[in-house]
Order: sequence, then structure tokens, then C-alpha cells
Amino acid sequence: MADFELLKELITPNQSKIVLLVMDGLGGIPREPNGPTELEYAKIPNFDRLANEGNVGLHIPVRPGLTPGSGPAHLALFGYDAVQYQIGRGVLESLGIGFDLQPGDVAARGNFCTVDADGNIIDRRAGRIPTEKCVELCNKLRPSTLPGVEMFVEPVKDYRFCLILRGEGLDPRVGDTDPQRKAPPLRAQAHAPEAEPTAALFNEWIAKAREILKNEHPANALTLRGIASDPGLPRFPDVYGLRSACVAVYPMYKGVSRLVGMDVIDFDGDSPADEFATVKAFWDAYDFFFVHIKPTDSRGEDGDFVGKAKAIETVDAALPGLLELKPDVLIVTGDHSTPSVLKSHSWHPVPALLWAPGVTRRDTATAFGETECLKGALGTFPATDLMPLALAHAKRLQKFGA
Amino acid sequence: MADFELLKELITPNQSKIVLLVMDGLGGIPREPNGPTELEYAKIPNFDRLANEGNVGLHIPVRPGLTPGSGPAHLALFGYDAVQYQIGRGVLESLGIGFDLQPGDVAARGNFCTVDADGNIIDRRAGRIPTEKCVELCNKLRPSTLPGVEMFVEPVKDYRFCLILRGEGLDPRVGDTDPQRKAPPLRAQAHAPEAEPTAALFNEWIAKAREILKNEHPANALTLRGIASDPGLPRFPDVYGLRSACVAVYPMYKGVSRLVGMDVIDFDGDSPADEFATVKAFWDAYDFFFVHIKPTDSRGEDGDFVGKAKAIETVDAALPGLLELKPDVLIVTGDHSTPSVLKSHSWHPVPALLWAPGVTRRDTATAFGETECLKGALGTFPATDLMPLALAHAKRLQKFGA
Repeated sequence: MADFELLKELITPNQSKIVLLVMDGLGGIPREPNGPTELEYAKIPNFDRLANEGNVGLHIPVRPGLTPGSGPAHLALFGYDAVQYQIGRGVLESLGIGFDLQPGDVAARGNFCTVDADGNIIDRRAGRIPTEKCVELCNKLRPSTLPGVEMFVEPVKDYRFCLILRGEGLDPRVGDTDPQRKAPPLRAQAHAPEAEPTAALFNEWIAKAREILKNEHPANALTLRGIASDPGLPRFPDVYGLRSACVAVYPMYKGVSRLVGMDVIDFDGDSPADEFATVKAFWDAYDFFFVHIKPTDSRGEDGDFVGKAKAIETVDAALPGLLELKPDVLIVTGDHSTPSVLKSHSWHPVPALLWAPGVTRRDTATAFGETECLKGALGTFPATDLMPLALAHAKRLQKFGA
Repeated sequence: MADFELLKELITPNQSKIVLLVMDGLGGIPREPNGPTELEYAKIPNFDRLANEGNVGLHIPVRPGLTPGSGPAHLALFGYDAVQYQIGRGVLESLGIGFDLQPGDVAARGNFCTVDADGNIIDRRAGRIPTEKCVELCNKLRPSTLPGVEMFVEPVKDYRFCLILRGEGLDPRVGDTDPQRKAPPLRAQAHAPEAEPTAALFNEWIAKAREILKNEHPANALTLRGIASDPGLPRFPDVYGLRSACVAVYPMYKGVSRLVGMDVIDFDGDSPADEFATVKAFWDAYDFFFVHIKPTDSRGEDGDFVGKAKAIETVDAALPGLLELKPDVLIVTGDHSTPSVLKSHSWHPVPALLWAPGVTRRDTATAFGETECLKGALGTFPATDLMPLALAHAKRLQKFGA
């Protein structure tokens, strides 16, 4: 991972601007033997030009062969070893909806679900109820309180909500209640003796909630998962000496950014052009912009090869709006691969492009794509190297040693 | 190394089959400047096709610049850091002959040798006596016992045998008795105070054995080397969740496989075709097959460039017998390099080929050879990454983090 202690001694401020443009799930694989990947299929003249002028390579998000989730994959891009710094899903979800999670809070991701007359879960997502229904159910659950702790029941999206406990002596080492099969929800189980009181609180709340929901349809029950606390990560702006902003549409990515201490910018619209316009609007206020693009991953998860390529093309088309700002360092990459052939995240190394006019060497890559990236000057490298490389190309690192 | 703890949490069983085909000492160097290596000289249409379809690269067995022995090199292929997990030669030899080594046993590799009238070793291998003679001498030595310990004297091959002590409180930290020059055999020396009693036992036995052998010719003395105990390695089948089998001809490789908990399959014949037929016969019983090919290394050690190339061609010719089984993941590599020019193991990175239809990217390598492997999508990587990559391509790893 990035050696934060070492970097701290070397960091020297300047006026440079760094942009980390992340197309979620960017990496792909061919549809047919020796065919192009989604990125290679896409018509992306702007990215190809940057690849030609700058350096390319492939990053390994967490470990060779490991398929990362979005949380760990983004931590890795930000320079944090994702095995050392693990974040629970409850925390990510809470932060993603803008909840002001405090140190010591214990957060769970909740799913409304459907149980049959025997209490067995027959739909883990309660027929994907609309968000409005989720809000209504959360409002019904809120009055149900527990002694000695403050409680927050917050809708997320569709069938998903967050439950946060706040109080003294809470311990997040409590297991999931989702049995992941047709069975009744599990009891919340403590994974350490110190977590017994917290598990008891969750179980008490679940019992009350089940009573409130029992006549609802289809959301007549719930499960809790990913129970966790803020792990207290080193703060990105301090570690790198960068006034840092996140420009993202989806809650999860805002959540990870908040967790590492970035400012999350609110803006209208959800297109790449809207995101780049937001960067422009805040250009003077920050040194570092993390810009997150979601549809690449979504189309990959859908198994939509051409749709994913089109999503990449949309970003390429909007790119001049970003380039006109003349960033000193622009990194274009993904957090992980989401090959549409696999319809899921994967372990494949992720194409990466580092463009820093006047500071990079040339390599023989002339386009932005997985196969061209094999020729790149960046080689195949751990994702956690990106931030030190960004700082270096922004001339924000002093010489190490005399 | 492979992070066993992390993998354990992510492993998910399925029906996939993984084959690790190891041509011992596969890597080579050119005979003349810019000439082909043995692998590049060999006519190997099947391997070339797999290289074209799959991904290639080069692995570093233990550390850059380190020339590994067979034991460490195989441990590395199996995902174990060979510096962290060291196995004594005595253990490897004992396991290689099928000896049922128990935890706590102390095993030594023995050499029959020839000493002159002054007691100086003048032939460290006793004129390479035939195995039958070795068996006869071991039989003569067996009645010589020691108080309080059980003893096993087991012939290996030619002038080599194993001596195993079994009993309470034995300690393997005892030095070699081979002076490696014209001098009398050394006394067995304890390298830790706790090992003094064990060293004393070895010396007592050596004295008795010398008495028994004194009138033999040429094997009138012996030396002991690589005194060691089973290091208690994590078990490969548990670490990776794979029912695992070893198909090998030579004792050493069976030994390492047993040490990590693989089943070692007995079979008739010793050709690559025989080994692939054995894989076929046990195809349903295992998820993972380690297939070991020895002649590549032997011809390299002989300095026989063309012979090594021919040995590779023999494997290529037999390969359809393996491919017809339709493995989900096939890795073809060596444990280390044995360039025939050097007539010995070497430190050079080892060509590696990962073939997993429908799951790999393309790279621009079109043949299997050291130079083409430089173009490969696998890059140059630690050998210990191979098993996590194999599991990933077999879709046996769940996502890490949400």
C-alpha cells in the first residue's frame, strides 16, 4: 500500500490539480476468443489520444486473483490496503445516504423481505418495493426505541434501509441475520463476548420491528447485514496534503469518500457532462477531484457488452469539458473489472491511464484498452501505487534522502 | 505469498477442475546470443495454441535472483512462501520414498561414501553403488538400534538412504556430517542446546554404523545431511478447498505433495502420456491435479539442450490426452529454470501459461516461450500468485468486501 508515513514527510504543496476519473467496473474481457473487450470496442478518440500522449498500464485492485467489492476497490485506488482497512457494508450504506456517522456508532444494512406463514424468507428483497414504500416503512419503524441508545432508521433505495445504533459501549462484532436461503431470519449473534449487549439490542429491536411489519405486504419482515462501525481510516486530505472532493452520483461512492475525509459535492444531474461541469464549478476550491462514473459497472453487471461500451463512449464524448480545465495530472481507470461476459465484478487487472503533460515518458501504447495497456510504461501494478504516482507527476513530492 | 486466511473466507466450492502441469526446470537460456531457449527451440504446437488462446507470463519462484531447490520451488507453486516455510532435505527424501513421517520424527538424508585409510572421504557417493547394494547395506544397518528411540534406515536410490529417529523430545536442529571436501565425516553437531541429546543419538548411531560398514567396499562409511522434521505446513486441500492429487514419477515431488496434504496417486508407467492417463482415470475424484514431469530438468542438468527440447516436445505430443478432459483451468509452467547451458537450476523467471477458456483476456503472445511470455497478460509475477489466479479463473473465489 501507499506508505502514508513516508509520504507525509515528502509532501510539498503547490498549485497543481489532480483528477482521478473512475469508470466503475471498467475492465472487461472479450465476448469471443481474441475479440475486443468493451473498452476496446468503444469508440473513444479522446481517451485514445490521452493514452497515446501519456502512460498506460493495468492495476491490481486488492490482490492477484481477488475480485473486490466496490468499497475495497475504491479504498485501494485511494492508496489504502483494502485487506488492512476493511469497512463493513452497514457503514458504507449509512455514509452513502449522507448519514452523519459518528465514531462508535454501529450501523447495519437492512433489507425488507417477505416471509411466509411459517416465517421462512421467500423473497429476500420483498418484491423490490419502491423507495417510497421503503420511506413509509422506515417512518413506521422509527418510534420503536431501545433503552439507553439512540436509534436511526433510514431508507436507502428500494427494499434497502440502514439501522444505526448510537450510545456508550456498543460493539459491532455482530453477525448477519440474513440466512441467505429459504429459512427464518437468524438471530443477531455476537462474535465476541463484548458484543453480547449490542446483539441483544439488535434482537430486541428486530422483535419490535417484526411486530410492526407483520401485516405489511410484501415487506412483512427484515434482515440486517454488514453490522459495522467507522473503522477510523487515515484521512485522505491529510495523508496526501490535498484539498479533496468527490463528484459522484451513487451513495456508495460518496460514502467511501466521506469515510476517508473527502468533501462530497452536491450537484444537479447525473451525466458525465454534469459531473465534469461540477468539477469546473469547484476547480479553484480543491486540489484533487475524485469523479465517479457508475453506468459502466451497471451495464457490465447487466451483461450488456455494447451498453457498457456506449457508457464508456459517453464519458469520452464529455471529456473535453474536463480537459479544458487543464488538469496537471489526470488518471483514468476503473475500481475493478466488470466483464459483461461474466455479469459480475472480476479479478482481472484494470486498465489505467496516467496523463500528465510534459512529465511522462512515452510508451508504445497508442490507444486505451486492456491489450494496449500491457505495453504501457506503468506495467501491471498494485492500485495503491496510483496516488503516489499522481503526487509525483503533480510535483508534490520532495526528494527522498539527500 | 498467497494470503491463506483471506482466501479461506472467500473460497466457494464448485464443479471446476484445475490442472497444474509442471515441467521441472522448464525455463532456459539461449545457447548462442539471441538464439532460442530450449522451450523456444522445441516444436510444441499444442502449447503454442494454448499460449495464443490463454495468457502467459513469467513467474519468480522464490525471490528475484534466487535459485531455488526443488522443494522450495514447488512450495512456491503451491502458494507457500518458501522462505517462511522451509523443509529439510531429510524430510523431503523420507516422504519421497513413501515413508510415513510422523510429527516429531527427525529425518536425515544419508549418503554412503568411501573413506581412505586415514578416514578422509575420497568419494562422496561411494562410486554411485547400485540401488540393490544400497538396500543390502540398509538391511545390515537396521539391527543397530539406540535406547529410547525407534529407528528407520530406508534405502532411496543408488548411494542415498534415509535415517529417521522417532521418539519423545527429539530436536532437528542438528548439522550435516558431510564435510563437502576430502576430510573425515564431521560429528553431528547440535545448533541449539535442546538438540544436544538428538545430536548425541545421531553420533552414537554413526559410530555403530561405521563399525558395521568398515569392511565394505566402496561404501565403507556414510554422511548425514538435511536433518529435519515435518514443518507442519498448512494443508493445501484445506487452504484452497480442493480435493487435490499429485501425479508424479519421482519421489521428491510425491514427498512435497504429501507434505502439503495432497493424495499421491500410484500408477504404472512413467511417460507424460501415462501421467495424463492417470489424471483421466481419477478425473472425477479430485478438483485439482498437480502433474509433475521430470525429464526436462534432468536433460537441463545434463547440459543437453536438444534433449531438453525433446522432453518438452514429448509432453506437448501427449497433451491432447489431457485437454480432452476439458479442464476449466490449465496452468503449464516449471518450478524453476534449469538452462542446459548452465547444467544446473537457475534464478531465471519461469515461463507460465494460464489457459481458462472464456475467462481470460487476450494478450499478444502467440507461442509458449520465454521471449513471448514477456508480452503476456500475466506479466512477471511471484509464483505464489498462481494458485489464487487458478482459483479465480475457476470461479472458486467469492467477492472480497461489498
